[in-house]
Amino acid sequence: MGLALRERGWHVTGRDRDDERAARALELGALDAVGDDPDAELTFVATPVGAVAAEAAAALKAGGVVTDVGSVKASIVDAVGDPRFVGGHPMAGSEQEGVEGADPRLFSGAVWVLTPTADTDPAAHVLVRSVVSSLGAEVVELPPVRHDALVAVVSHVPHLTAAALMGLAAERAEEHEALLRLAAGGFRDMTRIAAGSPGIWPDICVENRSAISEVLGRLEGALASVRALIDSEDRGGLLAELEAARAARANLPGRAADPAALAEVRVPVPDRPGVLAEVTTLASELQVDIADVEIAHSSEGEAGVLILTVDEERVERFRGGLVARGFKPSARRLS
Amino acid sequence: MGLALRERGWHVTGRDRDDERAARALELGALDAVGDDPDAELTFVATPVGAVAAEAAAALKAGGVVTDVGSVKASIVDAVGDPRFVGGHPMAGSEQEGVEGADPRLFSGAVWVLTPTADTDPAAHVLVRSVVSSLGAEVVELPPVRHDALVAVVSHVPHLTAAALMGLAAERAEEHEALLRLAAGGFRDMTRIAAGSPGIWPDICVENRSAISEVLGRLEGALASVRALIDSEDRGGLLAELEAARAARANLPGRAADPAALAEVRVPVPDRPGVLAEVTTLASELQVDIADVEIAHSSEGEAGVLILTVDEERVERFRGGLVARGFKPSARRLS
Repeated sequence: MGLALRERGWHVTGRDRDDERAARALELGALDAVGDDPDAELTFVATPVGAVAAEAAAALKAGGVVTDVGSVKASIVDAVGDPRFVGGHPMAGSEQEGVEGADPRLFSGAVWVLTPTADTDPAAHVLVRSVVSSLGAEVVELPPVRHDALVAVVSHVPHLTAAALMGLAAERAEEHEALLRLAAGGFRDMTRIAAGSPGIWPDICVENRSAISEVLGRLEGALASVRALIDSEDRGGLLAELEAARAARANLPGRAADPAALAEVRVPVPDRPGVLAEVTTLASELQVDIADVEIAHSSEGEAGVLILTVDEERVERFRGGLVARGFKPSARRLS
Repeated sequence: MGLALRERGWHVTGRDRDDERAARALELGALDAVGDDPDAELTFVATPVGAVAAEAAAALKAGGVVTDVGSVKASIVDAVGDPRFVGGHPMAGSEQEGVEGADPRLFSGAVWVLTPTADTDPAAHVLVRSVVSSLGAEVVELPPVRHDALVAVVSHVPHLTAAALMGLAAERAEEHEALLRLAAGGFRDMTRIAAGSPGIWPDICVENRSAISEVLGRLEGALASVRALIDSEDRGGLLAELEAARAARANLPGRAADPAALAEVRVPVPDRPGVLAEVTTLASELQVDIADVEIAHSSEGEAGVLILTVDEERVERFRGGLVARGFKPSARRLS
């Protein structure tokens, strides 16, 4: 992140609990200086999830905006409880650990979830959104609890399942070493994420335990159903299950294409907290990508206008949703 | 396979239940002729596992050696029950279906399991082994039941699990479309195999039902254990599980390197069926790669000598195993 931010002209100050690592980051050009910057406009807390709340509280005292990159959001957002904190989760990473594997293009094209709430300061939200977007990430706004339920399905439980599969294979490996030599591409693909550093996972599992536990239970149930189909030699049932999975896999969206045409949607809003979070999470629910957000305050200072740049194809859908929530949007095509 | 065999100078005749596909294979150079060759030395049966036994029986009538490429072996080997049939399973494939995706290098470096038994004709076994090796595959000999238990762990259950994970995500997707956009690299890796054609899987599941059912049950148990660790917030237990999985993943063997030095092991053997299968499966159990096998018959015709080329580093291990089984091997370094 330091490399990417510096490329875009930011002055980046940072620290690590390991002084040598911070010195190495400075050497590699990921930092301008080691330490804390009391005048920082924006602080990224990038610690294991269990440590985010304390670090965020310390950074908020200095007066700037604070975000984080933790894989669990509800417990962190609740614990911090500050309007200038915007929860974040970049859905990107690499097997390479530490500063040596740093790549300023890591976030380009990646989804970066933000979890503003009704209490979030809109200016803080807009600042985090614009900085994150400038790194090339596609921002998706979700309520914290919704984020946690979804990542349990697409990230946390798959990770634990990869580890469980690897564990089964390792048990068998003791009994017959030929097994691991039979492990072809599919098995390697499925267990790749189990190769990552496990250090962050106990915290993630505990902080998101209710969602993970529920999804694990559903997976156990799904596997038991498949087992029942196999035990009863139900070929038709098996085929139907696998066809459904194949169809769902084919529908996994690729990376977002550059929209052909953009439109500007102007939404007059009352000057109350939460309105920006409401509008942006509505956009995410409607699959409307927001390319840019601006807040124009009216001269009277009591209300304002949100100016959102979105894919022109989705404008009507977005307007429909906004009207349904009581807003009075207007839209125009750009260029 | 046709492309690879023709590159190596074989005359390849083949057919498909779909005449157009056979014509296309001829056009692409995967066949010299469409049809059956009554003088074929070797026939590969490449049908769904449920159809292998009948096709193999038909091919055996003509008098040559027959092998197959099915993902389940015990039921097929039992059903065929002919000394000139050698069960086979190349652990290679691609997402591309059909003749258009054909690649003669598909088997280069891949593991190709053969499942000879005590009843297998050694000459048939040696022929299949040498042809398969010539395609660049690494041959691993395993008893049919052992093969089935191992592929349940490294192939069949991972496939069903990928489908189950994809199914859970699809359920959630109906409730919130943002989910699939959050699916980053790890999830895509884990569910990739669910994208393949499901047509062959009902047969595989039914033919290998006892092994698959047992492994599915163990996976359900492993997931329930992880769930219990999470519910009780046992960070230490979670870390231990994930560390063990990571260590096992790190031990997945890479593709076999070219051995630095080869050695020849000569094993005088009685002229009885099963002795070649015994020696080669012993080599697999001891992780001794066999680069080449030859059978030299003694002039009296009642006994012979197996001449095996193996990695020189493993010679002592292999000799130890052979002596323990009552053989009297000799070895010499090559070149």
